Amino acid sequence: MPKLGNQTWRFESEPRVVTTGTIAGRIESEGPLGSWFDVKLDKNGMQSHSWEHDEQSLFNQSANLALQKSGISPKQVDLLIGGDLNAQLSGFYFGLRDLPTPSLGIYSACSSSTEALALAGLALDSGMAHYVLAGTSSHNSTAERQFRSPTEYGVQRPSTAQRTVTGAGMALLGKTGSNIALTTATIGRVVDYGVTNPWEFGAAMAPAAADTLTAHLQDTGHSLEDYDCIATGDLGHIGHKILRDLLSEQGLDPGGRLTDCGILIYRPDQPEVFSGGSGAACSTLVTFAYLLHQLQSGRWRRLLVAATGALLSTVAAQQGETIPSICHAVTFERKDASA
Amino acid sequence: MPKLGNQTWRFESEPRVVTTGTIAGRIESEGPLGSWFDVKLDKNGMQSHSWEHDEQSLFNQSANLALQKSGISPKQVDLLIGGDLNAQLSGFYFGLRDLPTPSLGIYSACSSSTEALALAGLALDSGMAHYVLAGTSSHNSTAERQFRSPTEYGVQRPSTAQRTVTGAGMALLGKTGSNIALTTATIGRVVDYGVTNPWEFGAAMAPAAADTLTAHLQDTGHSLEDYDCIATGDLGHIGHKILRDLLSEQGLDPGGRLTDCGILIYRPDQPEVFSGGSGAACSTLVTFAYLLHQLQSGRWRRLLVAATGALLSTVAAQQGETIPSICHAVTFERKDASA
Repeated sequence: MPKLGNQTWRFESEPRVVTTGTIAGRIESEGPLGSWFDVKLDKNGMQSHSWEHDEQSLFNQSANLALQKSGISPKQVDLLIGGDLNAQLSGFYFGLRDLPTPSLGIYSACSSSTEALALAGLALDSGMAHYVLAGTSSHNSTAERQFRSPTEYGVQRPSTAQRTVTGAGMALLGKTGSNIALTTATIGRVVDYGVTNPWEFGAAMAPAAADTLTAHLQDTGHSLEDYDCIATGDLGHIGHKILRDLLSEQGLDPGGRLTDCGILIYRPDQPEVFSGGSGAACSTLVTFAYLLHQLQSGRWRRLLVAATGALLSTVAAQQGETIPSICHAVTFERKDASA
Repeated sequence: MPKLGNQTWRFESEPRVVTTGTIAGRIESEGPLGSWFDVKLDKNGMQSHSWEHDEQSLFNQSANLALQKSGISPKQVDLLIGGDLNAQLSGFYFGLRDLPTPSLGIYSACSSSTEALALAGLALDSGMAHYVLAGTSSHNSTAERQFRSPTEYGVQRPSTAQRTVTGAGMALLGKTGSNIALTTATIGRVVDYGVTNPWEFGAAMAPAAADTLTAHLQDTGHSLEDYDCIATGDLGHIGHKILRDLLSEQGLDPGGRLTDCGILIYRPDQPEVFSGGSGAACSTLVTFAYLLHQLQSGRWRRLLVAATGALLSTVAAQQGETIPSICHAVTFERKDASA
């Protein structure tokens, strides 16, 4: 059966990650994972005539990087799936509009990365596509404009805040092409614990991560020990601690295998990174550039990426609404050629 | 083969439309299709404490209407797929957050309705879901706030403008449950003809509709005559005329079978409807309430709905950007019990 339990899709054809393309902002490139990104911006500040255009350009470059590495032409790609944090997905739609490819825009805030991968897996597994490009972008300055205050205000941030990652990543997935397979996707439910403070994403999103992780384990019959690494999207240091507490209440102790892309992407001593990274590109950059390499190198055999999204909007926040959250998880596995 | 040509998915298992739920604003209810909607709002103006909350409530009611008619409980639904025009999809995510169902937010402006249906078909056809709720909402006043000026400004509109439909619709799709099947989906490409005027959606979107319609015909090997009705999403009167011209350049004459949901939803003499309806709920309401009934009644056997989306954002428009557009098309067919 392709469906497992209530929330999990199993991709029986084991679609593969053919190539990835990643491009990271300066602060991200100066972080501990800097050497893993394909392209590292060496300066801050606007590169073109607007922050939004900069973000669109990052998205476009990441797609072209993945294509160039693969030798696959844009015309051979059946589907683009992606999203970003800008209203009406302008990063995705404007950034990739020069590709002659059927396109599906998706949005689940910072879990857009795994939503895109889940749908890419579905399209490949069902035989509706041979090649899919999936990914996300985010940009610190477009997100500030979108969700918070003009950067010129110099708003002071609390230590619970997270820094929106600047960058973009796309993966080219296909029926064959590498020994890294996308094997399952667990589709999350909206979870709302009533957090209203838009500086506390980690607290808002941790319950969604716990909900999806427990659903994934239940649906697949796996235990935590079956994974070499479980990486949440961007809970940051504070959300990560809350997630550990929530899992502990259910008798689950993930130990050292549980990490978080928002923690991994910055060093704690980098300026103004507070509780860690966030943004739709955070889990994309960390997964595509760093985590998948641990499977390629043979260090790991099975990786679960559970990207988390805080579903707030500026209007909703101004109207005093809570912050519903969601988490979609995908499994990557190393498949040996002899297997 | 499940994939046809470059852009079309064929759903070999022929998933069915089990039920639909539609709720329409007062202006829409006073239009020519008023009698077809399940729930008709009898007054304009805010029904709760915000326009946004009103829209979320419409979305929620449409889901519950579809569920109630079917006798299917929310827990039996495998997947919610939908979107709306609000930044960060707050109509969808806030409106449906009380449903305990895995959720996928999607966005392609006013073609979100057919994007949601395409993905619902994919999830059902692949065996990943037994029941999916798919749909969209839009609200005249939230769209004004999102895309244009505060309504208090009383901005005068040109005759090319379209009126954003207030309403919501969801369809419950399943493997069985009616004689109306969702048989194909053609995924659109982003098309940008350089239109920059946000009052001219019809002109911006007509090339995308032409692109997807011709791709659909090429992929399926069908001719226009194989359809009893081809309904574009919300081109309005002006965009509809442009589409006819674009098709004519390719030697295609759809005659009377080509219509448009934005034309159908209002009478031309209704106040301030200008070139016709638009909004993510426009094609949803017209399709779910009216067009599908023509299949149920046996008047038609095959219907193509090609919802069109103008992918502008407020920020992009203010930055002088063009309006890229997209169109996703789905086919519904009547299947006789004896077949």
